[in-house]
Amino acid sequence: MSDENAKALYWEDHQLGSRRVSGRRTITETDIVFHAGHTGDYHPYHIDADWAKTQPYGQRIAHGTLTFSIGVGLTGNAGGDNPVAFSYGYDRIRFVKPVFIGDTIHTVVTINQRRQDPKRTDRGFIDELGEVINQRGETVLVFTHIHAVAKRPTPV
Amino acid sequence: MSDENAKALYWEDHQLGSRRVSGRRTITETDIVFHAGHTGDYHPYHIDADWAKTQPYGQRIAHGTLTFSIGVGLTGNAGGDNPVAFSYGYDRIRFVKPVFIGDTIHTVVTINQRRQDPKRTDRGFIDELGEVINQRGETVLVFTHIHAVAKRPTPV
Amino acid sequence: MSDENAKALYWEDHQLGSRRVSGRRTITETDIVFHAGHTGDYHPYHIDADWAKTQPYGQRIAHGTLTFSIGVGLTGNAGGDNPVAFSYGYDRIRFVKPVFIGDTIHTVVTINQRRQDPKRTDRGFIDELGEVINQRGETVLVFTHIHAVAKRPTPV
Amino acid sequence: MSDENAKALYWEDHQLGSRRVSGRRTITETDIVFHAGHTGDYHPYHIDADWAKTQPYGQRIAHGTLTFSIGVGLTGNAGGDNPVAFSYGYDRIRFVKPVFIGDTIHTVVTINQRRQDPKRTDRGFIDELGEVINQRGETVLVFTHIHAVAKRPTPV
Amino acid sequence: MSDENAKALYWEDHQLGSRRVSGRRTITETDIVFHAGHTGDYHPYHIDADWAKTQPYGQRIAHGTLTFSIGVGLTGNAGGDNPVAFSYGYDRIRFVKPVFIGDTIHTVVTINQRRQDPKRTDRGFIDELGEVINQRGETVLVFTHIHAVAKRPTPV
Amino acid sequence: MSDENAKALYWEDHQLGSRRVSGRRTITETDIVFHAGHTGDYHPYHIDADWAKTQPYGQRIAHGTLTFSIGVGLTGNAGGDNPVAFSYGYDRIRFVKPVFIGDTIHTVVTINQRRQDPKRTDRGFIDELGEVINQRGETVLVFTHIHAVAKRPTPV
Repeated sequence: MSDENAKALYWEDHQLGSRRVSGRRTITETDIVFHAGHTGDYHPYHIDADWAKTQPYGQRIAHGTLTFSIGVGLTGNAGGDNPVAFSYGYDRIRFVKPVFIGDTIHTVVTINQRRQDPKRTDRGFIDELGEVINQRGETVLVFTHIHAVAKRPTPV
Repeated sequence: MSDENAKALYWEDHQLGSRRVSGRRTITETDIVFHAGHTGDYHPYHIDADWAKTQPYGQRIAHGTLTFSIGVGLTGNAGGDNPVAFSYGYDRIRFVKPVFIGDTIHTVVTINQRRQDPKRTDRGFIDELGEVINQRGETVLVFTHIHAVAKRPTPV
Repeated sequence: MSDENAKALYWEDHQLGSRRVSGRRTITETDIVFHAGHTGDYHPYHIDADWAKTQPYGQRIAHGTLTFSIGVGLTGNAGGDNPVAFSYGYDRIRFVKPVFIGDTIHTVVTINQRRQDPKRTDRGFIDELGEVINQRGETVLVFTHIHAVAKRPTPV
Repeated sequence: MSDENAKALYWEDHQLGSRRVSGRRTITETDIVFHAGHTGDYHPYHIDADWAKTQPYGQRIAHGTLTFSIGVGLTGNAGGDNPVAFSYGYDRIRFVKPVFIGDTIHTVVTINQRRQDPKRTDRGFIDELGEVINQRGETVLVFTHIHAVAKRPTPV
Repeated sequence: MSDENAKALYWEDHQLGSRRVSGRRTITETDIVFHAGHTGDYHPYHIDADWAKTQPYGQRIAHGTLTFSIGVGLTGNAGGDNPVAFSYGYDRIRFVKPVFIGDTIHTVVTINQRRQDPKRTDRGFIDELGEVINQRGETVLVFTHIHAVAKRPTPV
Repeated sequence: MSDENAKALYWEDHQLGSRRVSGRRTITETDIVFHAGHTGDYHPYHIDADWAKTQPYGQRIAHGTLTFSIGVGLTGNAGGDNPVAFSYGYDRIRFVKPVFIGDTIHTVVTINQRRQDPKRTDRGFIDELGEVINQRGETVLVFTHIHAVAKRPTPV
């Protein structure tokens, strides 16, 4: 849905602990070849299948930035479509486990903090914890997504 | 160069303040269309040129995950090729300014912290500050890249 | 959202005249180059900018299959996620106007027929009229999407 | 071959029952990942290998619009290069059987109708039946492609 | 058309001086971004629009391997579909002029030599001169394509 | 690294016999599907897995232009970043063995000739022999890359 249909969701409207579960997506060899070309990161861990066999994981692994980009992408427009919010940044991205070709991931997002913006009184921050989880139920990546969100205007 | 040529660079070998400057790359409409398809993030800010004209920036902007992925990719294999190091995660990713179609970015990476791993004595952390800079010299993105690096083995 | 969250929407549940409006997307040169490579259709109307200048439209035009594929894609998973329905086919696809590089399209879908399946009593057909519309409000493509949908099971 | 070499083939020149057989193409995982990104259709049937295993087909299936776009693309420029014809639309697209990763398809096109254009005397319609067939000889998709073709000018 | 329909064209059947003219294709920014990612060649001449402005050509130029790959691709299956021939190699590839974004190229192929294979009596070589020409009629690339072709079997 | 950091390497500075070994890359089905779309070369040897099974190699093979483009791309910017050199062309490209999906290639480049430019006294040619080698140590492709390189300016 395009933005014109979006409804304002103010800082006060965000509920601590509220949780969204994304759809799922299988990470394919195509995604890794794509991402290598897109970013220029041709590290042998990602594009040398022969060498990867000799390493501890025994196979190629997805780029960290790939898992992060798709993991975030899966969470969709929720939040992004909020006309009074924007993506401020990310904190504490941790690569917990490798993602292999053929793994199917999804992302669970939980609002875990509602903070004041120390510099501005008309907006605050909403921190969402993102957990990217594979088909075996293992968390492969965590991140904190920070949204800057307008406070509800005070009626005059 | 593939990994077999890489030389071990131990935790102690990293110099605070040492600095690398990446090559440069123009962010094209192609990159944005690619990234939308790669991640499934079709937010109108990225793929609706008509609506974007009516917004404060007046044009489409690159996805945050795109600027991050390419900004990191530009820093190349330095570090990644170090057989005694691995990418542990990222802290404090901040989208300072938008990236527009046609902007040319590069990344400056500076080692700004050398920390103990509180849980393990045989390795430590190296924090690199990454600054993604456009053709006008403006910083568009900052991030901290955390590398877990083995300490130099003590000769027996 | 993945399928496990989907709710069954039976044939009887579809309302004649009910209408969905998709998000919007700008058709770029990248999309056309992509589509030519994806389908092998390199007709000069799509990939010869120099020759296209000499033709009535004065510029390259999108492939019919491109406008159709993206026009359908924009309508998203609505219906597709219905576990008791599947896409049976399309009728009456008509290319009403050309789509040029830089045009921004969206799709309006209206349920315009609810038909019996002459061969099976346990399901029926839902016909949706799709209209792909550009940024000037012109309809560029119409199609009828036929969904085969299970009838509501009779309680015993 | 570019258009300048094309010869006019008038409405009267089309023979009922004449038939062309396209080359063949294997539908790969890459094609499906591409098409999902190109159209934004990430339905789990196409991109969730893990869930697809639990479904009746036991595996991912190609998008209908993918099979249609490539099935049409395989028929090449024949007709498309005819300077006195253009693609008017399609009728009766039916998804007869699923296309799986690794299936090899080709398209057989047969002229099955030559109709007057009720609104114009200087042109008519040529209907081609397209049959997309897999490596087991099974028809997976049928469509009717409608070409609007100029009638042969009457010498004065 | 797939190979099974191909007719054998023996070494003796190739006429010195015979000539084919390919269709045309506009080289887009997308092609260059693609090719950089496909090959890993991110030289600033191809992907740094800002720096390229300061150079003699004043703009980005296509990779040599891109112009060569597309220039050869445009010549299509002629020869390639000959079941008694295969592509032996190329000689004397010369980058005569740069190809810029927006240039439209085609390829003219002329048989300019018919040689014995010094090592085998049952086949010979056919050398084709390929000339890739832009929309201003300038030759941008030349190459010699060497085909190894079976001689006509002697009836017993 | 972008060009501004490059150091001039004059014709006289190139040592006969000096040798560079590139990183390695696995050629995937994705690369072949990409290259077919990028170049328009859909020859059944590359994209018809079913037919390829019936042929001598028993499987699809990479395009010659693909192996060449990636083989050259792997040699990276060395030479290309030399501000007093440019790529003049290639000689004697020979496809020695097929490249299959899953093969991992790298390129070894050896300077094997330093020639005068017969037409200009201020520059000469450096010929590099490129050998593209698979994971079994077999050479699959050879080429000679010709660089035109400025001679060292004579101090006045």
